[in-house]
Amino acid sequence: MAAAAGLRALGAKGSGWLRRDPWAPFTTGFCSGGRPGSGGRGRDPPSRGSGTASGQRPAWVRGCSPGGGRRDPGRERGAGGRLPTVPPHAETIILSEPKRRNALSLAMLKSLQSDILHEAESQDLKVIIISVIDEMSILTEGPVFSSGHDLKELTDEQGPDYHAEVMMLIQSPSSPCCDTAVPSDTSSFATPGVNSGLFCSTPAAALGRAVPSKVALEMLFTGEPISAQEALLHGLLSRVVPEEWREEETMRIARKVASLSQPVLSLGKAAFYWQLAQDLRTAYHLTSQTMVNNLGLPDGQEGVKAFLQKRKPVWSH
Amino acid sequence: MAAAAGLRALGAKGSGWLRRDPWAPFTTGFCSGGRPGSGGRGRDPPSRGSGTASGQRPAWVRGCSPGGGRRDPGRERGAGGRLPTVPPHAETIILSEPKRRNALSLAMLKSLQSDILHEAESQDLKVIIISVIDEMSILTEGPVFSSGHDLKELTDEQGPDYHAEVMMLIQSPSSPCCDTAVPSDTSSFATPGVNSGLFCSTPAAALGRAVPSKVALEMLFTGEPISAQEALLHGLLSRVVPEEWREEETMRIARKVASLSQPVLSLGKAAFYWQLAQDLRTAYHLTSQTMVNNLGLPDGQEGVKAFLQKRKPVWSH
Amino acid sequence: MAAAAGLRALGAKGSGWLRRDPWAPFTTGFCSGGRPGSGGRGRDPPSRGSGTASGQRPAWVRGCSPGGGRRDPGRERGAGGRLPTVPPHAETIILSEPKRRNALSLAMLKSLQSDILHEAESQDLKVIIISVIDEMSILTEGPVFSSGHDLKELTDEQGPDYHAEVMMLIQSPSSPCCDTAVPSDTSSFATPGVNSGLFCSTPAAALGRAVPSKVALEMLFTGEPISAQEALLHGLLSRVVPEEWREEETMRIARKVASLSQPVLSLGKAAFYWQLAQDLRTAYHLTSQTMVNNLGLPDGQEGVKAFLQKRKPVWSH
Repeated sequence: MAAAAGLRALGAKGSGWLRRDPWAPFTTGFCSGGRPGSGGRGRDPPSRGSGTASGQRPAWVRGCSPGGGRRDPGRERGAGGRLPTVPPHAETIILSEPKRRNALSLAMLKSLQSDILHEAESQDLKVIIISVIDEMSILTEGPVFSSGHDLKELTDEQGPDYHAEVMMLIQSPSSPCCDTAVPSDTSSFATPGVNSGLFCSTPAAALGRAVPSKVALEMLFTGEPISAQEALLHGLLSRVVPEEWREEETMRIARKVASLSQPVLSLGKAAFYWQLAQDLRTAYHLTSQTMVNNLGLPDGQEGVKAFLQKRKPVWSH
Repeated sequence: MAAAAGLRALGAKGSGWLRRDPWAPFTTGFCSGGRPGSGGRGRDPPSRGSGTASGQRPAWVRGCSPGGGRRDPGRERGAGGRLPTVPPHAETIILSEPKRRNALSLAMLKSLQSDILHEAESQDLKVIIISVIDEMSILTEGPVFSSGHDLKELTDEQGPDYHAEVMMLIQSPSSPCCDTAVPSDTSSFATPGVNSGLFCSTPAAALGRAVPSKVALEMLFTGEPISAQEALLHGLLSRVVPEEWREEETMRIARKVASLSQPVLSLGKAAFYWQLAQDLRTAYHLTSQTMVNNLGLPDGQEGVKAFLQKRKPVWSH
Repeated sequence: MAAAAGLRALGAKGSGWLRRDPWAPFTTGFCSGGRPGSGGRGRDPPSRGSGTASGQRPAWVRGCSPGGGRRDPGRERGAGGRLPTVPPHAETIILSEPKRRNALSLAMLKSLQSDILHEAESQDLKVIIISVIDEMSILTEGPVFSSGHDLKELTDEQGPDYHAEVMMLIQSPSSPCCDTAVPSDTSSFATPGVNSGLFCSTPAAALGRAVPSKVALEMLFTGEPISAQEALLHGLLSRVVPEEWREEETMRIARKVASLSQPVLSLGKAAFYWQLAQDLRTAYHLTSQTMVNNLGLPDGQEGVKAFLQKRKPVWSH
């Protein structure tokens, strides 16, 4: 694995988990956080790399058991053959086109969307980890999480309809956005599109909500990267870890989240993104109702009773 | 006193202080900031403690004169018998159920709401300080500002109506939220409910508006505490002070605020929370009008004239 | 120059630069960021200074060629006679009433608005730098970017209509707000109005959106300044630089922005402020459309093709 690993906690789409609630049922897709920016160490614009033909499915290495079962969570094998311990109820998706710097071509986006939606239907899954292989770490520029758009697909040969399809997909609720991230302290972040005449407006929607406007505009207007420490200071990140601890810390968080109740996580995550888009008064009203609903869940009562009885809770999922 | 002291500047509800303004009169209750998170040093979920029977008024130590007069502001006596100098126009409310970790039972919430509303009616009061007694500082886990919900009240024996009453009260405009806080550098902050199957959705409304989403979600999904330094970095706090300076710094800020004009503070505070819920263009329109109104207040003119005449202003309140 | 220099990237108002877009055309004025706070080193309220008669145009030193041509961008001469290298496509506006601490009188505001609107019409201009002369650096209190309102104009002798004109102008879309700022590490920031009975409600609209509420309220309630380092921590600033590097860093950023495509910057800036006022879902929809529009611009295609052909792009503006 390489420069940054994203962590995403997801709930199942099954019915009944939002009981006694007047809102329309949430699909997992609603709970997206947006893609705050693309990683890259240098000051140069995103590299094109040698390309798979457009439309072809990218050669991803996906989380799988050593025996090869596609849906068996709990084990994952990177291109390097290492077998980090992915906890139960978690699965890893690995971006594995290092030569193309994991550029988000239409094929890559469609494949990623399809995989995430597929995972999200699992009743057992609580965490999706998105990571990259470390094949690029031997290259000069270091490993790259993703260089962002595949500029090769954005010339006027494809035309505005194709462009619109790419742009709509990259911002759709199933796009590869993460609830939190575990970047190494040597990573950097940039919105370099302006150097190539393409202002990073879609990333700006997430960036402008994650960092102060002056920080966002300076990144967008100059295209220059900020360091992991600057990203932490400005609120783009919640933490940075030394590169050698990155994978361990990612798995520690995944283990913790995967040990909790799936229906409770699902309800809480859906309510979090929902209330954040409301004014404060409405947000408090919605979340108060959510907590009453939470207490009505079997796992809500199990958790409270286990606490009062000083025992470990046993979750339904 | 103990781990953290909240400072709250409040204006009177008297008529006439929002003169020439087209908006509906603000009550103080509107000006709430929300409760950003519960304090706690350990990684364990909120402690139940030994309880007062539900419905009974908690045994608070409230700010009072040495002679015992309930409404006499300016003096306060903690359980330890110390007499810190609370400035004129300020009053202290002390949470004093350390054995129950100041859990927010329905009785505690109702009592707190009643007291704050009572204080807010005073024409002379400018600052309410909410603090805790330091009885718990001898316990292993250290002093606790509040452990949050009283889980004993949240089993299905009480039923959803009771739960709804608790949840609505804790988010009501009179809940113990503070405009600013003066925590010691050894305090920590957590939303640990997910460990007990109860996602901290109500706190998440304030937390998600105070810190970046990735920080909020990591706290909510893992239930793990962050340190005062992390809380400062991420925007949950505006400052941290060494424990031995905490009380002095709290009183210094209280003295400064209490030395200013009450009608001006009231108008400014009401407008601040009001405009923050609007889009920027509306916010500028509202606040421009507010400043014109401010200049029409006797204290507005007194302040400007005192400045031009290089003398100290004499406020009406 | 002195304590702080603001940088503002502006696009032209010419038609056609927002092609194929369903929204109403943006004027530059829409893209305001608001004035987050006034600078000042001491804890004293804004100084009155000796005044130009109200209504008279303040004696500004504006960016001009050595020969004196008013509209010739690229050169600028401060009061001290230095000639810092302002890059092509950039222009400098210098606040030059140090004895009045650059107080924002009605005359100053009108002049500033007029100049900014005039600049914004230029097809060639990409950056406006707002700075101050360093005449005050020999005074005890150090240089001041602006002390904020001119209190002399806010007594009841002028009356509410005059006050309203000042307040509306200071928050108008053409007010001297900046997209980003390059302050020195010795500067400080305050909203001291409450000391003079005038709560800084208009600045609070920007301040409350730039820093956490607890930080904003403590500044507003106490009137006390925060240091540049605190402002950086809390998100009011994106950077601080040593005083001796301030001008060089300002020009470095200006050069970088001025080297990019003006239509691309204009489109991106307009979309940034527009989407920020929307909910996240709408924001993503708007920005996706913006990126498709961006790809339809001649400079959008030039940038992508130059990147793929590994050559330097040649912008239309």
